[in-house]
Amino acid sequence: MENGHAKNLVAVIGSGNWGSVASRLIASNTAKLPSFHDEVRMWVFEEILPTGKKLSESINQANENCKYLPGIKLGANVIADPDLENAVKDANMLVFVTPHQFVEGICKKLVGKLRPGTEGISLIKGMEVKMEGPCMISKLITNILGINCCVLMGANIANEIAVEKFSEATIGYKKDKEVATRWAKLFTTPYFLVSVVEDIEGVELCGTLKNVVAIAAGLVDGLDMGNNTKAAIMRIGLREMRAFSKLLSPTVRDNTFFESCGVADLITTCLGGRNRRVAEAFARNGGKRSFDELEAEMLHGQKLQGVSTAKEVYEVLTYRGWQELFPLLSTVHEICIGQLPPTSIVEYRIH
Amino acid sequence: MENGHAKNLVAVIGSGNWGSVASRLIASNTAKLPSFHDEVRMWVFEEILPTGKKLSESINQANENCKYLPGIKLGANVIADPDLENAVKDANMLVFVTPHQFVEGICKKLVGKLRPGTEGISLIKGMEVKMEGPCMISKLITNILGINCCVLMGANIANEIAVEKFSEATIGYKKDKEVATRWAKLFTTPYFLVSVVEDIEGVELCGTLKNVVAIAAGLVDGLDMGNNTKAAIMRIGLREMRAFSKLLSPTVRDNTFFESCGVADLITTCLGGRNRRVAEAFARNGGKRSFDELEAEMLHGQKLQGVSTAKEVYEVLTYRGWQELFPLLSTVHEICIGQLPPTSIVEYRIH
Repeated sequence: MENGHAKNLVAVIGSGNWGSVASRLIASNTAKLPSFHDEVRMWVFEEILPTGKKLSESINQANENCKYLPGIKLGANVIADPDLENAVKDANMLVFVTPHQFVEGICKKLVGKLRPGTEGISLIKGMEVKMEGPCMISKLITNILGINCCVLMGANIANEIAVEKFSEATIGYKKDKEVATRWAKLFTTPYFLVSVVEDIEGVELCGTLKNVVAIAAGLVDGLDMGNNTKAAIMRIGLREMRAFSKLLSPTVRDNTFFESCGVADLITTCLGGRNRRVAEAFARNGGKRSFDELEAEMLHGQKLQGVSTAKEVYEVLTYRGWQELFPLLSTVHEICIGQLPPTSIVEYRIH
Repeated sequence: MENGHAKNLVAVIGSGNWGSVASRLIASNTAKLPSFHDEVRMWVFEEILPTGKKLSESINQANENCKYLPGIKLGANVIADPDLENAVKDANMLVFVTPHQFVEGICKKLVGKLRPGTEGISLIKGMEVKMEGPCMISKLITNILGINCCVLMGANIANEIAVEKFSEATIGYKKDKEVATRWAKLFTTPYFLVSVVEDIEGVELCGTLKNVVAIAAGLVDGLDMGNNTKAAIMRIGLREMRAFSKLLSPTVRDNTFFESCGVADLITTCLGGRNRRVAEAFARNGGKRSFDELEAEMLHGQKLQGVSTAKEVYEVLTYRGWQELFPLLSTVHEICIGQLPPTSIVEYRIH
């Protein structure tokens, strides 16, 4: 397959904001590259729109996801399909880009339905950091489906990539560089540069841990501490992300944190993003209104990734006796649960 | 001296904004630490204030630098002295914090006037990157005065540190860790954390090269490209800073770029700062008004560090045939001189 003997067929599992943008990126390449079939099938979790129309039909008629990416043509070769099994039929390259809580259920439905030699890639941020170790989503996919699975992470605000603003991403792979390079070819455009690194754990951990640092950055914003302090907190956060990742997975590489998935995604998330925003509001209220309350008010039902990840990380730190090594990660959780005031975010000893 | 047999005496050479803040930080520690004399002498380049009073006298009367750090008490143990030779008399620890163009002249005046065993530290950003190699300011001081000289760099906006907002800095040293640690002790406070790294070249190069990246970040702001693109450009900039530093000085360490002098100072400079600001205006004007013109209008006579450093770096890159390895650093210069449009800042090939 990879040698050009047969064409690769790509299916995208997920059609939210990022899923739609990913399909658009991919379709622009499959239309041009001879080693790929033009058509990209995009599995849609079916919804009935306010007009009474089905989302999948609307996408296929307008070539546009009017709910999650309005105003952007996806490319004529993107075909929405609400039937999961049919969407992946004959595909040998599967892109997973659903909310993280749905991955397991979706994979279970696909057991026994995939072509031999199928490759996967996960664009899903939000793995859980459990006591037993990190539950990487790429690993979950591999375990259930028995397929190799890479990850793609980075400073990727879907709406900005949709309008072709310059951006980058990082693909993490386990061993097979040829497959990672094939994925990179599928995603790369002149405005979306993709690099590959042999560090799947590091890349995937970045995508989750950055949200805890974004809470810290938001607190600094809410305390009106200025750019100097914010930069210091982001730096300490980046170092703790790196050190924590290396303790969890000794194969994690320093260099990964210089990639888009590391420092760039951290910067984007600490400048914008909902974790930063709600944490800013939390600090402005002097910690008197809980994160739960602010989330409900500001995010309309969505949950803050950073708060739950901070809790998971804290459990690991206390269980393993690592708390003193990670003052920032620990402090974020203790502030989130009201044990420390927001101002504690800038009270450190050197480490 | 370092073993406590005699007390260290500190003199600060320079009394601008950062010099005044540095004196204040240092004086808060010498007043407490038994291994230092309380008194900190601060050399003042004498000026006559609009009131007719001398700046040095005004500082000593008000314990405040009304011109460069108004409203902040320096500490009763800071003594302003307009006589350079007298200011450094008996001192064995000299802090250099003048504008970079004055260092050479000041050092020449001090030849033969220093105690044996005197140690120096440079807080001066703005070394030149010459064809023959980088002209490090620490090295200039060492060459003229024959003293060991460390550097202190980092995300240090003087006015924010003056009001004790949390910040960090990095001390780079050549070999003598004991001396570096003594400097760290002199600067560290609960709101100003200082780490030491054995990489003087890397630390000092960071303080200069970041200004070129800040120009790039400002262009992205002026083009309204969004946080995603800005983060990508900052990341590419950080990587090129690192790669360029390592080519210039093979002893430069990757880890230095994770320190305050690296990623944190870069973030601060790309979020605020005059290089970013003028570059933003340049892009908003579509490159039709030159940097010289905008500088004159926006900075009232001050020159943009980033523009001249970009030119120096470009000369090195073309001379050594490294241009293709450093697309961002090269592109910044070509945009500055009007050879490329501002939009070129986001047109890259993977490297």
